[in-house]
Amino acid sequence: MSRRAYAIGVDFGTESGRALLVDIANGHEIATAVHAYANGVIDEQLPGTSIRLEHDWALQDPRDYLEVFKHAIPAVLAQGGVDPADVIGLGIDFTACTILPTTADGTPLCFLPAWRDHPHAWVKLWKHHAAQPEANRLNQIARERGEAWLARYGGKISSEWFFPKAWQILNEAPEVYAVAERIIEGGDWVVWQLTGVETRNACTAGYKALWSKRDGFPPDAFFKALDPRLEHIVDEKMSRTILPLGARAGGLTDEAAGWTGLRPGTPVAVANLDAHVAVPAATVFEPGRMVIIMGTSNCHMVLGASETLVPGICGVVQDGIVPGLAGYEAGQACVGDSFAWFVEQCVPAAYERAAAARGLSIHQHLEELAARLLPGESGLLALDWWNGNRTVLVDADLSGVLLGATLATKPEEIYRALIESTAYGTRVIIDNFEANGVPISEIVATGGLPERNKLLMQIYADVTGRPIRRVGTAQGGALGAAMHGAVAAGKAAGGYDTIAEAAAPMTRLHEESFTPNPEAQTVYAQLYREYLTLHDYFGRGANDVMKRLKQLREARRSGHA
Amino acid sequence: MSRRAYAIGVDFGTESGRALLVDIANGHEIATAVHAYANGVIDEQLPGTSIRLEHDWALQDPRDYLEVFKHAIPAVLAQGGVDPADVIGLGIDFTACTILPTTADGTPLCFLPAWRDHPHAWVKLWKHHAAQPEANRLNQIARERGEAWLARYGGKISSEWFFPKAWQILNEAPEVYAVAERIIEGGDWVVWQLTGVETRNACTAGYKALWSKRDGFPPDAFFKALDPRLEHIVDEKMSRTILPLGARAGGLTDEAAGWTGLRPGTPVAVANLDAHVAVPAATVFEPGRMVIIMGTSNCHMVLGASETLVPGICGVVQDGIVPGLAGYEAGQACVGDSFAWFVEQCVPAAYERAAAARGLSIHQHLEELAARLLPGESGLLALDWWNGNRTVLVDADLSGVLLGATLATKPEEIYRALIESTAYGTRVIIDNFEANGVPISEIVATGGLPERNKLLMQIYADVTGRPIRRVGTAQGGALGAAMHGAVAAGKAAGGYDTIAEAAAPMTRLHEESFTPNPEAQTVYAQLYREYLTLHDYFGRGANDVMKRLKQLREARRSGHA
Repeated sequence: MSRRAYAIGVDFGTESGRALLVDIANGHEIATAVHAYANGVIDEQLPGTSIRLEHDWALQDPRDYLEVFKHAIPAVLAQGGVDPADVIGLGIDFTACTILPTTADGTPLCFLPAWRDHPHAWVKLWKHHAAQPEANRLNQIARERGEAWLARYGGKISSEWFFPKAWQILNEAPEVYAVAERIIEGGDWVVWQLTGVETRNACTAGYKALWSKRDGFPPDAFFKALDPRLEHIVDEKMSRTILPLGARAGGLTDEAAGWTGLRPGTPVAVANLDAHVAVPAATVFEPGRMVIIMGTSNCHMVLGASETLVPGICGVVQDGIVPGLAGYEAGQACVGDSFAWFVEQCVPAAYERAAAARGLSIHQHLEELAARLLPGESGLLALDWWNGNRTVLVDADLSGVLLGATLATKPEEIYRALIESTAYGTRVIIDNFEANGVPISEIVATGGLPERNKLLMQIYADVTGRPIRRVGTAQGGALGAAMHGAVAAGKAAGGYDTIAEAAAPMTRLHEESFTPNPEAQTVYAQLYREYLTLHDYFGRGANDVMKRLKQLREARRSGHA
Repeated sequence: MSRRAYAIGVDFGTESGRALLVDIANGHEIATAVHAYANGVIDEQLPGTSIRLEHDWALQDPRDYLEVFKHAIPAVLAQGGVDPADVIGLGIDFTACTILPTTADGTPLCFLPAWRDHPHAWVKLWKHHAAQPEANRLNQIARERGEAWLARYGGKISSEWFFPKAWQILNEAPEVYAVAERIIEGGDWVVWQLTGVETRNACTAGYKALWSKRDGFPPDAFFKALDPRLEHIVDEKMSRTILPLGARAGGLTDEAAGWTGLRPGTPVAVANLDAHVAVPAATVFEPGRMVIIMGTSNCHMVLGASETLVPGICGVVQDGIVPGLAGYEAGQACVGDSFAWFVEQCVPAAYERAAAARGLSIHQHLEELAARLLPGESGLLALDWWNGNRTVLVDADLSGVLLGATLATKPEEIYRALIESTAYGTRVIIDNFEANGVPISEIVATGGLPERNKLLMQIYADVTGRPIRRVGTAQGGALGAAMHGAVAAGKAAGGYDTIAEAAAPMTRLHEESFTPNPEAQTVYAQLYREYLTLHDYFGRGANDVMKRLKQLREARRSGHA
């Protein structure tokens, strides 16, 4: 009997990192371990200092990423009783755009005593939203210059992305920008720490840094138009060498082998993006099947035979998800986050007690109560913009709305209205894809929410009118990363040569399918029309009250501080 | 030394009745007692039956009113150690429009075994909102016929009022309507029980039953146009004899003397309306000073030298509040009710614990946290329509909106936004009065809220730009009722001949005044413009989403039941 072969995927999320040890012959999940980031999301105060962060900031500590390697990988090896020699490859997926400034050798500036007290020296997490002025200006200049790449990103790029964030460093802390010899994605940085080799992967470069396989980065003249000091940002702080997904970044260094318990030289794949890596793990290698990664936010992934320009999406990147196809990404900035906000800020003690008495979490209790309601029965309608709107409006200054409240309104009704609002938001995205020539006939859901919340799955089926299945694993990100680890190893080393070859044995869908209920579809069609009217009224300039309220809020807060 | 003289006011509220024993020489409140209605607000199930009530229904049990006489009046007499012989008069104020069908001798139909199981045989409480179809039809027909009286009620009457409610009985239960020999206001009914004499007072007749001193009731032809069976409703079920405020309805019967412990023959004033009776108690006998009765809902009262027609108000009634002046009424359907809803349905356990640890009520705890916020700092804006809109839109089908929510939104921010929304609603009312020639230069607040919530008082001052003082007593309604009791007795019997004479010694304002803060006024002026835009967008037909959501809700609920 031949030795078994394993791959490890490490999924870096917003609050923690997870390692998954997988049997590459059959996808069996041998062991998993989660390590929470000690400093989590840094959005109030810089660790070890009394420095307060401004509203809209979200930082992280790169040390927390290394700790994931040191704890979670040894944990899965021990738990699985697996010989490190049988681990043939390691893959990484990471949140993005999550970037940090480093020295030429990859040392984060925030590790240096001279810069530790400077917020701009730390990691800017994907949900750092303070670079909106830079994003606005960048979009305006790109439009004025008729930059062709802009259309690939739906005509508007997000404040979350690479260049707005990098530009914010330059604007607010030119001294940090000057001393930063590299500015790099967190995913690429951790691969660098494992292999000693600086690489940049095609996925994050394509989706977050305006790079394309055909055209490369935007021209230096564009960056110069933003700010003369940015003219050579690509050559000075980044790299024009972008590796395809599944490529081998390098082998584990001795030091990293020491951290992880794996053998030196173990192949490490180039980094991937947490949402995108979930697509092959969702068995999707063809157009027409949308993968939605449902968690704190939603990411929507579709493949296309060719690059079609779709307004308002996050982007389309040739080979950005799987080789040979155009990968489309769209997204909703706030899904599980709004349910969590609701449970934390708005659910009364009586509900906490009732849930506890039944041995349920508050989410489970609310889901059960909400599932008893018929569509339309609450009279509520919400706009799912608690964290702005990503697709199709691309506007972080929009905010949440709850409409239809009466004195009889119950928490479970609001909870259901929030779920429904995120389903309407997804339907806007699907309708927009289809209207622009990217068809979507079914949905595969992955991430934390589909496992936990069947009501949400059914509502998404009813609102979108598409059948939904979910991935057989709750760890789509980590599994996809492990699959890429097996591809980085290659067939010769006991792995696979392509991601599709890896997927066939390693992943499958859950058998349960959620199919649209025709009666619910009819009611939701009516509610969706109402949602669309409000979506356009508040989101497309008829009434910019949300922007004005936000401006006033910021002015009051800064005057107050 | 002459004997002291006392009056008793009995204030019938939504959940309970309160008796107040007052020294008429100086207004000293000798004793007060509250008796809660055993059946409270009946809005789910008819007492003693398994009959479920439809949504929007709100009934009461007339027995509960009699229990107030039997418990609260003996309690204040005992507590005050007052000789019943020294109580010179008794006054009543009551919620309105709160009506019940009775036999010719005043027996409520719901007391009769044959009708007890019929929801339409019970008292329809003011906030019974199920007669909206009748109100809509009535308004339409009145407009078509060019009924002159319609303009006195702002051009539109409410589903809460007498004729929509009576018509709903006829439509849904013609057998109850047929057997009802009288249909009468709760306030007039309790006076009937005390005195054995059926009277109808000018205040409720004027504000709720379309009567005016000059023109009487609408013509029979109008009622016939609604439904031929309604043609003679006034003569068949009501009375054309309407008594002025302060008039003596009669003396206590032996039976009622037995209930209360007062002497048979003690003068009883004709009933008054809970909000209106608070105006003389607020020392207001002249134009320009608005009295706002702040509680579960807001009532806005202003006096005018002459009857001016103001659109959207509840009504203007000559002599309806104090003799010799036109009394204007406007209102907001939901004020304290929305704060209570919020505290009950939306405040998390952590806040309950924090409040308890500090020995505060949740309201106090939230008020304190909310008071630390600057105007505009939360970024939130609400429409205060949790129970529809009374003035100026007169539309029970409107519903509440919260806009501007983010993942950082805190309960105290929502609480403050709800308070602010009710202040914007009041400013709409003030601006509407002024635009139509009824000036308002200052505000006197009375009711439960002004005593309890100073933040609310300051916000109202800042939003309306008017100084606000509050009445020296928290019992403005009961005190006003007692003052009318003293007037019913008359000077010859140791009381007063006019309500103004009674007010001078019996009531005063609290010294504390809330004056507008110029900086807050500037910010609120901006927020008020945003409120107005949304108010008109959702309330004046640009987007009737609230009505459609309500229709859908009702359809789903009835299909679900």
